Amino acid sequence: MSIDKDKKNETGAEQAIAKLADAGVEVCFMNPGTSEMHMVSAIDACDDMRGILGLFEGVVTGAADGYGRIKGKPAMTLLHLGPGLANGLANLHNAKRAGSPVLNIIGDHAIAHMKYDAPLASDIASLAKTVSYKTHQVKTSVSLTPTCLTACAQTMENQGQITTVIVPANCAWESVETFSPEDKPASKSSDDFKAVAEVANALNSGEKCLLLLGGNALDVDGLNLAGKIAHATGCGLSSPTFSKKRWRGQGVVRAERLPYFGDMVLATLKDVKHLILVGAKSPVSFFAYEGASSDLVPEGCNVINLAVPTKNPELALKALARELGCGDGDSVAPFSGALPPLPEGKLDGLKIGMALAHFMPDGCIVSDESNTNGLAVRAMTIFAKPHQWMDLTGGSIGQGLPLAIGAAIAEPDKKVMALQADGSAMYTLQSLWTIARENLDITIVLFSNKSYAILNVEFAKLGLMASAGDEAKTMMSLDKPEIDFVSLAKGLGVEAASADTAEEFNALLEKAINTKGAFLIDAKIDPPM
Amino acid sequence: MSIDKDKKNETGAEQAIAKLADAGVEVCFMNPGTSEMHMVSAIDACDDMRGILGLFEGVVTGAADGYGRIKGKPAMTLLHLGPGLANGLANLHNAKRAGSPVLNIIGDHAIAHMKYDAPLASDIASLAKTVSYKTHQVKTSVSLTPTCLTACAQTMENQGQITTVIVPANCAWESVETFSPEDKPASKSSDDFKAVAEVANALNSGEKCLLLLGGNALDVDGLNLAGKIAHATGCGLSSPTFSKKRWRGQGVVRAERLPYFGDMVLATLKDVKHLILVGAKSPVSFFAYEGASSDLVPEGCNVINLAVPTKNPELALKALARELGCGDGDSVAPFSGALPPLPEGKLDGLKIGMALAHFMPDGCIVSDESNTNGLAVRAMTIFAKPHQWMDLTGGSIGQGLPLAIGAAIAEPDKKVMALQADGSAMYTLQSLWTIARENLDITIVLFSNKSYAILNVEFAKLGLMASAGDEAKTMMSLDKPEIDFVSLAKGLGVEAASADTAEEFNALLEKAINTKGAFLIDAKIDPPM
Repeated sequence: MSIDKDKKNETGAEQAIAKLADAGVEVCFMNPGTSEMHMVSAIDACDDMRGILGLFEGVVTGAADGYGRIKGKPAMTLLHLGPGLANGLANLHNAKRAGSPVLNIIGDHAIAHMKYDAPLASDIASLAKTVSYKTHQVKTSVSLTPTCLTACAQTMENQGQITTVIVPANCAWESVETFSPEDKPASKSSDDFKAVAEVANALNSGEKCLLLLGGNALDVDGLNLAGKIAHATGCGLSSPTFSKKRWRGQGVVRAERLPYFGDMVLATLKDVKHLILVGAKSPVSFFAYEGASSDLVPEGCNVINLAVPTKNPELALKALARELGCGDGDSVAPFSGALPPLPEGKLDGLKIGMALAHFMPDGCIVSDESNTNGLAVRAMTIFAKPHQWMDLTGGSIGQGLPLAIGAAIAEPDKKVMALQADGSAMYTLQSLWTIARENLDITIVLFSNKSYAILNVEFAKLGLMASAGDEAKTMMSLDKPEIDFVSLAKGLGVEAASADTAEEFNALLEKAINTKGAFLIDAKIDPPM
Repeated sequence: MSIDKDKKNETGAEQAIAKLADAGVEVCFMNPGTSEMHMVSAIDACDDMRGILGLFEGVVTGAADGYGRIKGKPAMTLLHLGPGLANGLANLHNAKRAGSPVLNIIGDHAIAHMKYDAPLASDIASLAKTVSYKTHQVKTSVSLTPTCLTACAQTMENQGQITTVIVPANCAWESVETFSPEDKPASKSSDDFKAVAEVANALNSGEKCLLLLGGNALDVDGLNLAGKIAHATGCGLSSPTFSKKRWRGQGVVRAERLPYFGDMVLATLKDVKHLILVGAKSPVSFFAYEGASSDLVPEGCNVINLAVPTKNPELALKALARELGCGDGDSVAPFSGALPPLPEGKLDGLKIGMALAHFMPDGCIVSDESNTNGLAVRAMTIFAKPHQWMDLTGGSIGQGLPLAIGAAIAEPDKKVMALQADGSAMYTLQSLWTIARENLDITIVLFSNKSYAILNVEFAKLGLMASAGDEAKTMMSLDKPEIDFVSLAKGLGVEAASADTAEEFNALLEKAINTKGAFLIDAKIDPPM
């Protein structure tokens, strides 16, 4: 073996990035700083990985979440020290709740520099642990690559996890020897679903049963399996209030979404004798209200956990269908319904939903952060052609636009629809710049009701509205000054126009959907109260 | 004692807010959610406290930092659960590094709701501890008020601290009995500065000495004391690279700022035999560079710590002046210099500085996040009328605009100048909306160089530029698409105009400064390389 003495050893960063690319990581969502410059240089030098820049870390992590949900493979981020991670935490919280496979690489100060407590030093690991399945602290350049590969593989465990690798700058810049990763056998997901017989008994009991589907049970294959089980046993099919990703629309087996407010969930479930969890958690209320129950399973309802969310729910459905002997049988009829008419007159959330039902293209991907407008929009878009739908999974607002970015990067040939509430849009508005820069095929419908509408609803629900003065109401209102989203979009390079009437909205929506590229429709609707 | 049976007991929230107002908290910077609604209602009902809404928590916490720095009293925030705190952490990091008195009230789920792991549940305490001097977890409504009062008092310890109180929703909504806080004697700052004699000896040794001033040693009184010491002993006066707040300009005793890059600091200090720390930390480099020292004290230089940053440095200077017998003596001449000419021709950072030197009004407050443009701007504005200057203390970008909000709320009769780099502005751009809404008297100079300029500099400094491909350069460039800050400002309700030439800039600046209210000047300058 001859040694090329002129060949400069590669840096830890170069090696790690090359091996991550070999492991299938094609994209790095990033907002780097000085301590990540060698990683940036390595990505620059790697032909099989490209960087996507976000002007704020919440954009970066939300985009990774969207990419991971749609692509089903590790979504990588590169963030700058503790503050960079901190800025990305809210959307990592959502990604954690979704179960998205996200690999965070966080730069840190060089190890020798740490003892000086320089201005940007902070406790990165404590921040990372709040959202990460595993947090790895790299100590040497030699361990950088194997640690990154381990962390990358861990993102795919349990149906999707967040892992974080903290990389001191010197471990990225120091030279390393050749490294050959071992071929590890892929870890098998256990398909041992112990409750199958118990669930089959319940389904055959004649008592009212409901399957609550989560994870990949809401993909087309999972829904088809559930449809066969429903046909064979008469059980109902349902889905959690907020899902990582789900198929829905014309021709798709329908799993009715549970409502947001607890009293409505209790009403929905009131006659159910057996609630069967298939990759979903038992329903609880989002917030607590004085005197109201947090647990939304009615008294006397028996909950059976067929598959916890970290197991593969589609496999659980397969096992259940086999147990019931309905593997090749008929399915319940998939959803089908007459399109609502094209809306006319003054615009509101319902009319936006009607227009979406008309124009949303077959196979499009929806990033939904329409919040208070979601009820009407969901009710109408079920009549649209089949599409994938991503929800705000962790309640941390500012997810919608970043999620759309990630989905559009993952599936460049599909139209992405971002249904976006105004208050939430303001959290990660920087997304528009990345959308323009990457020329992403995203139609943004901005629900401009000039209000933190959900807070008005919650304030009233808590019984506080009667005594509320102007100041409290002002804290939930976004109308002074009014935000001009057309100006904001143009300022960030995205074409935009506003609509006051349904006719204007219909025309803009049809054009935006039929044109490849980004467009924002500022849909002017009334505040809720 | 008669009991008024009709009187409804107050809630924990009402009591806590009323007592915090009694303790002098006049303003609450906030972005609340459902779990904070009873706090919002209580602030609404309290005549002595008003709420300031930010459309993102980074705005809220940065504004609190600015308020705390200028007002010198507790700056309160109200944030929504873990994600709300997470969004505010980056600017809390800066506030921690500044030593600002900030009291965070973070809502949490009701205690009975916690076990259900609802979507927004997360580990708030772990997040809070990364930036907080003390983190308090409230367990009962009865303990809410005393805990808030304790935390509020703690913000004023050690020259300014961050404290955080986590408040489960039920502790805010439950009724409480009357509570009368005990009068506690104010804790006295120890003025026992053990190194006074040693410092006096060094100053009298004839060897070259430098006082490195921090905290209130950079206020007018502190600088005057330092000026007397410098006159009596011939020592130099210096200040850290980044300060919480400092007075400077014509007629103010000058403490020369240490440069940003380590090699320049080492050059500055190379002949210094005694470096005397007065409320400042010993200088270290911001980042590590391969082969370069992190500790910026030259070999052979003796460091004496007269007052650590948590002690009162002005008192330390008083004690030192007394020891030296120069209490009533002369001072070094305060800074005085001829104004640079009004700039002409194509705009650049230096010319912006020259124009600022001309027009900045007496006693104005500067929030500086001009980053790479700061060198020229600082060099020129030293010729301006006396003013207060606030730096980016923790290196976490997105501080400048929020800090200006807080300063303008703290001192409504003073003009605030926000000197703002473009990339950093995008982190907390939502600030403009609050500036418009509160009609704050802020002139924003936006340094639009379409670049993360500092990263270009750092990338070159790390020796990576020579081999850099387009992709790496693209990750530091903000020109595709170009950001139109005039559109963005108008979209958020702030008047704005752009300037390509010094003449245009001068005219806009003069007008903005002489008009009460907010105005943004989009100053178009070239990228650094």
